[in-house]
Amino acid sequence: MGKTILITGGARSGKSGIAETKALSLAPRAVYIATAEVRDHEMASRVARHQARRGAEWVTHPEPLDLVGALRATDGQGPRLVDCLTLWLTNLMLGGHDWQAEGRALVDALHRQADPVLLVTNEVGGGIVPDNALAREFRDAAGLLNQWVAAAADEVILAVAGLPLKVK
Amino acid sequence: MGKTILITGGARSGKSGIAETKALSLAPRAVYIATAEVRDHEMASRVARHQARRGAEWVTHPEPLDLVGALRATDGQGPRLVDCLTLWLTNLMLGGHDWQAEGRALVDALHRQADPVLLVTNEVGGGIVPDNALAREFRDAAGLLNQWVAAAADEVILAVAGLPLKVK
Amino acid sequence: MGKTILITGGARSGKSGIAETKALSLAPRAVYIATAEVRDHEMASRVARHQARRGAEWVTHPEPLDLVGALRATDGQGPRLVDCLTLWLTNLMLGGHDWQAEGRALVDALHRQADPVLLVTNEVGGGIVPDNALAREFRDAAGLLNQWVAAAADEVILAVAGLPLKVK
Repeated sequence: MGKTILITGGARSGKSGIAETKALSLAPRAVYIATAEVRDHEMASRVARHQARRGAEWVTHPEPLDLVGALRATDGQGPRLVDCLTLWLTNLMLGGHDWQAEGRALVDALHRQADPVLLVTNEVGGGIVPDNALAREFRDAAGLLNQWVAAAADEVILAVAGLPLKVK
Repeated sequence: MGKTILITGGARSGKSGIAETKALSLAPRAVYIATAEVRDHEMASRVARHQARRGAEWVTHPEPLDLVGALRATDGQGPRLVDCLTLWLTNLMLGGHDWQAEGRALVDALHRQADPVLLVTNEVGGGIVPDNALAREFRDAAGLLNQWVAAAADEVILAVAGLPLKVK
Repeated sequence: MGKTILITGGARSGKSGIAETKALSLAPRAVYIATAEVRDHEMASRVARHQARRGAEWVTHPEPLDLVGALRATDGQGPRLVDCLTLWLTNLMLGGHDWQAEGRALVDALHRQADPVLLVTNEVGGGIVPDNALAREFRDAAGLLNQWVAAAADEVILAVAGLPLKVK
């Protein structure tokens, strides 16, 4: 079974950079599974920044919803980096999908991979309780999804100011 | 003196699960001191979820305000799990109590316990500065209370994605 | 070259206290470089609380903007404690300065110091994505600045409930 590595952290904590370095330490080429749906200018410039940092070692595989299918399609092509779980969760919730069923299917799929999978996710539960119910629901869902994937992972890393802190 | 263990972390970081496992590793039966005041449906469903996870090993002792009294009443019944300090602080502040005096009384009481006490609390200071003054005041109070209890604790654990990270 | 130590953490996580203790472990006297601009009563009372905690071992050097100049002016006077980077960033952004250029100049300056520099900063990216674009921009800037300084630092500490967690 391929190794599963979860990299979590706050916004701009250097999660993606840590994950990219780690993926390329496992193999000379890797697949970047991008879950972002580019909906506005802010998102477009963020995606462009991330792409500019990655070099020719990367093949990009965009997939906003069917992460299990993306993992199946790319197994055998080297380490896969999923960036990120919280955007995937956002897409699932906005699209009216059953995120709990999808989350459990993802965990099952992780156990079936031959090549490694690195997953980037966000810590979103460290602030004051949000005012609106939707934000609280998202926060709860993101926390549970992180717990499920962390339980299945061989390694869990917390990014702090661009540095990796080993959790598991 | 009974051991004091503080388990902190963001929302849905798996704090309660870690605390429950730890309490039952100390003794076959434990007391759950619930500080939640059930005020709305969202809170009721959260309490129900937590209770469903706990089994017959647990005696529940609800106490929204008099934590020192609850610890005195339950000492001798095995490990006590206080879940959680931030709800207790909310109850104190909403009720117009002197949370600083209560917090210091709690720290004093922790030093007098024969049986272990595990306390769950929340990291609430990791986001952007909140817009409203009350949220900032709560955030400051929660941070100070966590520092006081952590200073008195024998063990402090940060929950990250359901996993324990040793801080003390 | 003087040692560089970064102390990060959420609001009221005990960052300043940890940094002050650490500075006075390096030398009997230290310089406190205060970046706070006192604009309202809430800030004034926070500054007063911090000053009351510090004793006669400290010389205060207030500097809201020119941190590089403050480091140059105080090198040779013992350890310098910059408290804090996020207020400095706020001052730069509110004043319309180029925070990226200033941030890179700070990192360059850190490499030129003879005496140690301790820098306190805030984790602001651990909550739900803020509603307004300015808060998101600040959050991104603060995260990047923290990464730059952490990369240049000899030691990085995450404050959790008043306790130091070694990151680097």
